[in-house]
Amino acid sequence: MKVINGGVCAPKGFMANGIHAGIRKNKDKIDMSLIVSKTKANAAAVYTTNLVMGAPIYVTKANLNNGYAQAMLCNSGNANTCNANGIEIATESCEILAKELKINPSDVIVASTGVIGQPLSILPFKNGMKELVEGLASDEEHANLACQGIMTTDTVKKEIAVEFEIDGKVCHIGAITKGSGMIHPALATMLCFITTDVAITSTLLNEALLDCVDDSFNMLSVDGDTSTNDMVSIMANGLAGNEKIVEKNLEYGAFVDALKYVCVTLAKKMAKDGEGATKLLIVDVNHAKTKEDAKIVAKSVVCSSLLKAAMFGSDANWGRVLCAIGYSKANVDIFKVDVAFESEKGNILVCKNGSGVEFSEEIAKEILLEDEITIQINLNDGEGEAQAFGCDLTYDYVKINGDYRS
Amino acid sequence: MKVINGGVCAPKGFMANGIHAGIRKNKDKIDMSLIVSKTKANAAAVYTTNLVMGAPIYVTKANLNNGYAQAMLCNSGNANTCNANGIEIATESCEILAKELKINPSDVIVASTGVIGQPLSILPFKNGMKELVEGLASDEEHANLACQGIMTTDTVKKEIAVEFEIDGKVCHIGAITKGSGMIHPALATMLCFITTDVAITSTLLNEALLDCVDDSFNMLSVDGDTSTNDMVSIMANGLAGNEKIVEKNLEYGAFVDALKYVCVTLAKKMAKDGEGATKLLIVDVNHAKTKEDAKIVAKSVVCSSLLKAAMFGSDANWGRVLCAIGYSKANVDIFKVDVAFESEKGNILVCKNGSGVEFSEEIAKEILLEDEITIQINLNDGEGEAQAFGCDLTYDYVKINGDYRS
Repeated sequence: MKVINGGVCAPKGFMANGIHAGIRKNKDKIDMSLIVSKTKANAAAVYTTNLVMGAPIYVTKANLNNGYAQAMLCNSGNANTCNANGIEIATESCEILAKELKINPSDVIVASTGVIGQPLSILPFKNGMKELVEGLASDEEHANLACQGIMTTDTVKKEIAVEFEIDGKVCHIGAITKGSGMIHPALATMLCFITTDVAITSTLLNEALLDCVDDSFNMLSVDGDTSTNDMVSIMANGLAGNEKIVEKNLEYGAFVDALKYVCVTLAKKMAKDGEGATKLLIVDVNHAKTKEDAKIVAKSVVCSSLLKAAMFGSDANWGRVLCAIGYSKANVDIFKVDVAFESEKGNILVCKNGSGVEFSEEIAKEILLEDEITIQINLNDGEGEAQAFGCDLTYDYVKINGDYRS
Repeated sequence: MKVINGGVCAPKGFMANGIHAGIRKNKDKIDMSLIVSKTKANAAAVYTTNLVMGAPIYVTKANLNNGYAQAMLCNSGNANTCNANGIEIATESCEILAKELKINPSDVIVASTGVIGQPLSILPFKNGMKELVEGLASDEEHANLACQGIMTTDTVKKEIAVEFEIDGKVCHIGAITKGSGMIHPALATMLCFITTDVAITSTLLNEALLDCVDDSFNMLSVDGDTSTNDMVSIMANGLAGNEKIVEKNLEYGAFVDALKYVCVTLAKKMAKDGEGATKLLIVDVNHAKTKEDAKIVAKSVVCSSLLKAAMFGSDANWGRVLCAIGYSKANVDIFKVDVAFESEKGNILVCKNGSGVEFSEEIAKEILLEDEITIQINLNDGEGEAQAFGCDLTYDYVKINGDYRS
């Protein structure tokens, strides 16, 4: 498997575009994105578990009931959530797009991201759709425009494409994602749109997606807030020409490996670009009693505001790691826990068997000044392992969220 | 019932003191506190639910097995947690105090607060205990010294005393507390030492304490981190002269009312003085299906980093309130939820039946610029109600915790 350029247009038969349709005031900001498969694709999605769901989530869930889709439409600048007429707007936007593309409205995956509870007008969809569809193209530039159109407080674009082989055929997966704050996915995640030309049944596509999301976006937290609009969706149009995957064989394994790589890579990119973040934090838990215990510990540590602030200050305050393990509710023997901090500058053990060990504060500081930090936790109690992804808590997080709406 | 001066020395028969014993480097900072009852008292305590517990918690739990205590000893500057010899140090400090007071070492409630995982020397206890005990007195000044000695990043002292009557006898409750960061009590809380001269059995004292803590400290969150050293303890020496409370009668009710007032008042003081906080946030949930649902919703909202940052910016971003209700896991009908913001400057409805209503941003801003904000949530779905207490998320929280150890 290798990483390639092209984003969501890397897989065969996918086109993309992004335009400024007028949802945002800033005319330089792309606010509507579209990804289209030339043929109808098998499709799957996972959604937020928040009881408050964006209107597009309801519409997409209904549309994906049959396991097919051909287009992904997403606006930024307005979440279309907690709006009395939100479902109507989301439904009508699918109809407008379907008419322009000459497809069925139920083959549209629709999503929105932005402020909650602000009325969303249908006008930008009516006025912009023709331009959005006519501009569709299969190149990297247009994949890029689609990637820009879903960004909110994101400071960098997050896209990836990979190439791999299934029974001698070259296959691809491409994906774009966004997410900067309100990131603490539970069973689903922020917005991620994935394309692939692999031939696979909708049922297996769905299973593969759930499996990959569990170890990637579901292990990601920026601020502990689970968004109302989280969604990861995938379209598989089968144009790679591989024999259709209909069972969990070696080929299915190759597809899942590639998809997991894509999801984990994007989860790390999202963590590193968390609102206000200066550092990517990877919490690497090993030798837990079970994988579930490892996951609980990893997420508890990556979510600790106190640890996140300490990492911002490059302060080796490992007591906060122990504290977060202790309140995690995982089945852990605290007196077996070892903790080390690691970065490109080296690795330093700071806690052994649940108690502090002597270490050089200077070396620890040097390690923690890097912008990618791994917090290694060895529970010495079994074979469960998990990784969680997060970021530090900074002045800028407070600044960005102190007045997000203005 | 009325609020009076005197802190922990307000109840009859209690003495207090606080000195600089040398645990902290700053000689102007009091770092060891002592509260003593002239007679042996019935006593109770609730503790952190963190699996990582401070060594003093283990020792105090053992000491309170019999339901009696006569002294409360607490140091700041070092949590005595995750230290290989922590239990020895905590045990020996009780012995040193008991010898000086000529009481049984098992009648000591011992506590520590400060940095986790730094070795604690027994020397400050050996060297300072004589001065600490000899300086004990029953006045407000000494109650105040004890209150100062338990502070860490707290910026204001938090103490209270109340006077009330039980069968014609004047009774008192006094309390001091600390807590500024790592505040998200679960079943217990940060440090709070309560004294009372009410005569009551240890069993009922324990029940009363659990009941009051549930509605006060357990509804408080500064940063979602449950400390390793949380403890609320109470000594009741019976010197008020009331007929001993041995059942849940009217007199028990009067005692619980007074104790609850003390705990809720201190919880609010702690929230308002949360690390870096500029505002007290009270989340007031009404008409939930059950009290438990109301509590879950209140805590979820008060813990939302995004809402806390919005409140710092005086931004009426009510979508974040809905979002936090939605991921709370409480049994809520989102389409019945009303939200209003209230302060001394007025009250403004921002969400009705789960959707936004038009409101004046100017008036909302004026209301939110105050330093005590109530977020009123009406679930319109039953009779459960609860209040949670928290604070805004500010630059200073990040600053304080970016380099706490230095």
